[in-house]
Amino acid sequence: MTATHRSRRERLGALLAEHDVDALLVTRGVNVRYLTGLVSSNAAVLVREDGSAVLATDSRYVETAERVCPDVEIVRRRDVAAALVTRAARPGVEAHDMSVAAFRDLGEHVAVTGRLVEAVRVVKDEQEIEALRTACELTDRAFAGVVETITPGMTERQIARALEIRMMELGADKPAFDSIVASGPNGSVPHHSPGDRPVARGDLITMDFGALHDGYHADMTRTVALGPVADWQRELYELVAAAQLAGVGAVAPGAGLAEVDAAARDVIAAAGHADRFEHGLGHGVGLEIHEDPFLRASGAGRLEDRVPITVEPGVYLPGRGGVRIEDTLVTRAGGPELLTRTTKELLVL
Amino acid sequence: MTATHRSRRERLGALLAEHDVDALLVTRGVNVRYLTGLVSSNAAVLVREDGSAVLATDSRYVETAERVCPDVEIVRRRDVAAALVTRAARPGVEAHDMSVAAFRDLGEHVAVTGRLVEAVRVVKDEQEIEALRTACELTDRAFAGVVETITPGMTERQIARALEIRMMELGADKPAFDSIVASGPNGSVPHHSPGDRPVARGDLITMDFGALHDGYHADMTRTVALGPVADWQRELYELVAAAQLAGVGAVAPGAGLAEVDAAARDVIAAAGHADRFEHGLGHGVGLEIHEDPFLRASGAGRLEDRVPITVEPGVYLPGRGGVRIEDTLVTRAGGPELLTRTTKELLVL
Repeated sequence: MTATHRSRRERLGALLAEHDVDALLVTRGVNVRYLTGLVSSNAAVLVREDGSAVLATDSRYVETAERVCPDVEIVRRRDVAAALVTRAARPGVEAHDMSVAAFRDLGEHVAVTGRLVEAVRVVKDEQEIEALRTACELTDRAFAGVVETITPGMTERQIARALEIRMMELGADKPAFDSIVASGPNGSVPHHSPGDRPVARGDLITMDFGALHDGYHADMTRTVALGPVADWQRELYELVAAAQLAGVGAVAPGAGLAEVDAAARDVIAAAGHADRFEHGLGHGVGLEIHEDPFLRASGAGRLEDRVPITVEPGVYLPGRGGVRIEDTLVTRAGGPELLTRTTKELLVL
Repeated sequence: MTATHRSRRERLGALLAEHDVDALLVTRGVNVRYLTGLVSSNAAVLVREDGSAVLATDSRYVETAERVCPDVEIVRRRDVAAALVTRAARPGVEAHDMSVAAFRDLGEHVAVTGRLVEAVRVVKDEQEIEALRTACELTDRAFAGVVETITPGMTERQIARALEIRMMELGADKPAFDSIVASGPNGSVPHHSPGDRPVARGDLITMDFGALHDGYHADMTRTVALGPVADWQRELYELVAAAQLAGVGAVAPGAGLAEVDAAARDVIAAAGHADRFEHGLGHGVGLEIHEDPFLRASGAGRLEDRVPITVEPGVYLPGRGGVRIEDTLVTRAGGPELLTRTTKELLVL
């Protein structure tokens, strides 16, 4: 892994000159992990143009740091940013993450820079995609194991816990994020917290969850029916499924972010539900559950090759319910690679 | 809960005048939750001196917000800080949390303030302590269920997953943090990530974990022996146990933070291990796993009544192993209330 991290730092280093800095002081934990392999709640790394680096962390993590990144100079100090800021003539800081209070302590020679490491992280290497593939496989398998056990009377919370426990039993490190289970009328709340509502016959049940594996986040949503299924429910499901298929079909290296969003959104708008799909179509996934790029109507920029992304249209009808269907996939030259592979036919339980 | 949140906002509002602001623009998610009850990844709340408030969140959370905080004005907008910053003449922002980039967008009338909500959060109400009590009880029960199943050959990772799955089966929302299981020589790394090392006869095994319940975090560490136990291991255990007992005994309303730290640290120093206990003695717990106050040698200030806090001394011997023992407790006038109640006698498996 040492060579992988060095190569990532070199790609970052190559960006520094155009931002008028001679080093980047990386303080976001997830970015420190990406560039060094060290997982720590208190670490920073200073990366220079040639990819060389100095890492600062406190006594709790020094032994691990020495093992994980033997090619990086390590400084033992609790105040990690202060330990590194004097090691470059003009270091940039991560202005989207560093707090106003921390910034004020660093001195006049510091420059403000943007999401440089996040930009490097967009295109994944095959090792990262393999970790995501495993995370998504655990997610699929947990869904298959739990969906058959859903019966009227189970609460949303019980279903959420069952999915999460099953993922961990299968080997997930933990759930990738707080699972959403929204049943019946709760389905109209896109980010509903699973509560004590028992699911009942006639409900649509939306489950949005995923496994974390080796730092990488799976993200999948399926909406199932606890039959019987009303006509409006089946129509809504088929609409969202068609929109999702259109969105997936638009995902390709070179496709515009807004263009992919529109491919799915237009299907929903044509059915008269434009104002019932208020969130973006999807987002990058990797070391974070939501990361660049974002598929939105306002999205500038284009997809590249090897970018893991979600496609998750939804239609939400206040007081009645909703449907969302989401996959995690990866852009590939020959067409997107689906990482979540659970069927998108309407499952009627 | 509405009255509870209103009362918290009033306590916050009472602090504003001395900081020369007429409102606080609260953007930290955990602080928004504390003041309104809304759990959201994108929300902000502006709190005025009289405790009245305006909350901004995006379409994903608006329905929930209307239900959770009916006494608060709600603004639907994605850019939550910008939506609120114009609603006060001189709003303060949370400089310890707000990013440099976000701050630059807010305008000249904004003032920089510190950890005001965190200060209000230090002393818990009985409802919060009850949530912590439940979280700690789930932690105790998971430990009791799993410790008996530990046998030579199980990996650290398997033990960690078993503890986490057991907590969730018992009703925890999720693990309160990434569990630590450190066996044998790994015990010398205070924040060791559980790996593939199989535990073996003659190991000390340190388990640091806890349950999350209703937003509140339990934190407990126990070190057990997979016998036989060497003399140095038993001596080390008894030393840390004595230090932990001394630390717990020093926890009281009015006690100085440094004084409590010293009560435990002096025991370890007297045994010649001062340089093998490099971290602080403990930290507040609540809506965050680490929050104010911090028990450290450099700690200024004193404990108050009804402050949940951990006491967790450890001694770490590089290449050999280590021992840490930790409880979560609450300051009470009549002596601390232990929330984690698992025995601190050395368990030999």
